[in-house]
Amino acid sequence: MIVAGFPVEEFANRASFEETVYLLWHDALPDLGQLSGFREALSARRPLPRAAALLLREAAFERAPVMDALRMAAGAVGLGAPEDASAEDEFYEDALGLVARFPTIVAAYWRLLDGEEPVAPDPELGLVANYLYMLTGEVPGGEFVRALETYLNTVVDHGLNASTFAARVIVSTRSDVVSAVVGAIGALKGPLHGGAPGPALDAVFEIREAGEAESYLREKIERGERLMGFGHRIYKVRDPRADVLADAAERLYEAEAADTKLYRLALEVEETVLRLLAEYKPERGLQTNVEFYTALLLHGLGLPMGLFTPTFAVGRVAGWTAHCFEQRAQDRLIRPQSAYVGPRDRSWVPLEAR
Amino acid sequence: MIVAGFPVEEFANRASFEETVYLLWHDALPDLGQLSGFREALSARRPLPRAAALLLREAAFERAPVMDALRMAAGAVGLGAPEDASAEDEFYEDALGLVARFPTIVAAYWRLLDGEEPVAPDPELGLVANYLYMLTGEVPGGEFVRALETYLNTVVDHGLNASTFAARVIVSTRSDVVSAVVGAIGALKGPLHGGAPGPALDAVFEIREAGEAESYLREKIERGERLMGFGHRIYKVRDPRADVLADAAERLYEAEAADTKLYRLALEVEETVLRLLAEYKPERGLQTNVEFYTALLLHGLGLPMGLFTPTFAVGRVAGWTAHCFEQRAQDRLIRPQSAYVGPRDRSWVPLEAR
Repeated sequence: MIVAGFPVEEFANRASFEETVYLLWHDALPDLGQLSGFREALSARRPLPRAAALLLREAAFERAPVMDALRMAAGAVGLGAPEDASAEDEFYEDALGLVARFPTIVAAYWRLLDGEEPVAPDPELGLVANYLYMLTGEVPGGEFVRALETYLNTVVDHGLNASTFAARVIVSTRSDVVSAVVGAIGALKGPLHGGAPGPALDAVFEIREAGEAESYLREKIERGERLMGFGHRIYKVRDPRADVLADAAERLYEAEAADTKLYRLALEVEETVLRLLAEYKPERGLQTNVEFYTALLLHGLGLPMGLFTPTFAVGRVAGWTAHCFEQRAQDRLIRPQSAYVGPRDRSWVPLEAR
Repeated sequence: MIVAGFPVEEFANRASFEETVYLLWHDALPDLGQLSGFREALSARRPLPRAAALLLREAAFERAPVMDALRMAAGAVGLGAPEDASAEDEFYEDALGLVARFPTIVAAYWRLLDGEEPVAPDPELGLVANYLYMLTGEVPGGEFVRALETYLNTVVDHGLNASTFAARVIVSTRSDVVSAVVGAIGALKGPLHGGAPGPALDAVFEIREAGEAESYLREKIERGERLMGFGHRIYKVRDPRADVLADAAERLYEAEAADTKLYRLALEVEETVLRLLAEYKPERGLQTNVEFYTALLLHGLGLPMGLFTPTFAVGRVAGWTAHCFEQRAQDRLIRPQSAYVGPRDRSWVPLEAR
């Protein structure tokens, strides 16, 4: 996986998320002045305009799914947002507003669903530290921030997946980037959209004791059940992002001692799964996939599973917006030809005669 | 142009809009009982849930473009909508809600922009009559309803245009139909999206007197300016929808005497344009396009140009939802492969060293 020329292992565990967004948008790493200006521009756009905040309360009242709330609020971020007099380019301004406000929307909505008031963004914190702060009300430790930053960097982009493609189709009509990102959120919601980490640790949670792993897993494999967290549609060899995330998870659990028991168990389960898969399905060459390490990492950060896909979106919006800039620059309508294969020459029958 | 097996000239000027939607969704004309049940189901879903209504007020306060307001409110129609206990299928329920509420959203927002209160839907009126009623507060005459119904029937669907394609990409992840339609609205907004009638009558409005037509038009052609309302990207021969719309416009102006002076002028301008185009660009074979007759028809209905694209959407949402049903039945992810063509193997440079 390459992002703007950088292999994922070269930048993901080094760059701040803001540096990655800048890199995607400008195809170059920012220098100190550029980065500080970019951070400030994003930080200033974090608060939610009134309409989006109201909408989140309505959605929470209805207990709408988080991704629906994100889709609705993201579509309304332009309403009542303070105009930046220096923003000549509305498209760029909108893209900034989206990347800046995704964390605010997700964190505010999550708290509202829990019956708690949203926490106002802290402009002094970086984007990722502030996201965790808005979720919990507490300033997170450095290892937490680094771990989440590394995760978000690995998921910023992944070719023309369905959400990115939807965004490009929308921008290809010369529509705006808010419309494109709203469409992309709608596509990301669907369970066939890859990339968002799901129940990859289910086996680990169910096993509880290392000693039970082998018998539990053998039973599952012999029943023909799929083991979540292993294998990938595209990568038949080890996904390059897996090492980066495995390292990040290891560092997080070592530094913060966050549920190390679960971490050790997860590694034992992983080892057992790989051994058993090699025994039962040697021809498949199945590997631990990124979802496994992602789930481990996000769990270590204290994020509940309901926040996994929305947090994925907090990262992926950087890629969506970058694709929108690229599509806008190309300025070519995406509109496939279709062949009508239905019946022809039906005749009208008046209602009374049907 | 064929819709569910019917050539456009076979059904567009006969079917009510509800019949067309039913035909698209079920691939058959409804009988009396089916049609009356379908009308009732749509009629019951016209009122806007509170969140969508609030959002329109916020949007009007900001003077957001109509298509943005439609995108936002359509995305929120599910919030607080009364659950239909008989609706087993949420996808179908959402599609009904969208088709039923597009006219309510557009009419309410248009009035709010004008500083007027929205008019509540009248459940006794058909979908199209009620749309005009909610716009003006007056029950429209039969010829008005027939003319708009014919127009909406001609624009319900048109292959895989960008908005329809965006909707299908979104549903292809097994996402919901509200997400898909919101994405489609975003694509339709873009000026490169074809189909929505624009300034096709500009020349007619500028000419004012038939006697001035020829000199005005010759000048325009000799300056190399494009004449709006003539020619089409796809149809090199006369667009089959053009005759249907020309007839519908003729009947409307004859019956209602709505600005017949403009109508007669428009026909004279059309004749002059065609004669001059044959003289200047005989090899192009340019014909009057649907936008010309559409603009004539919508103008005759008293709709201002700002309502042209939103009214187009009121019709097209029937096609979007029909495509969503089809895509859901196929259940195949749309996700093109992409080839990365950028640089590779860039190396990380620490911030201090940039």
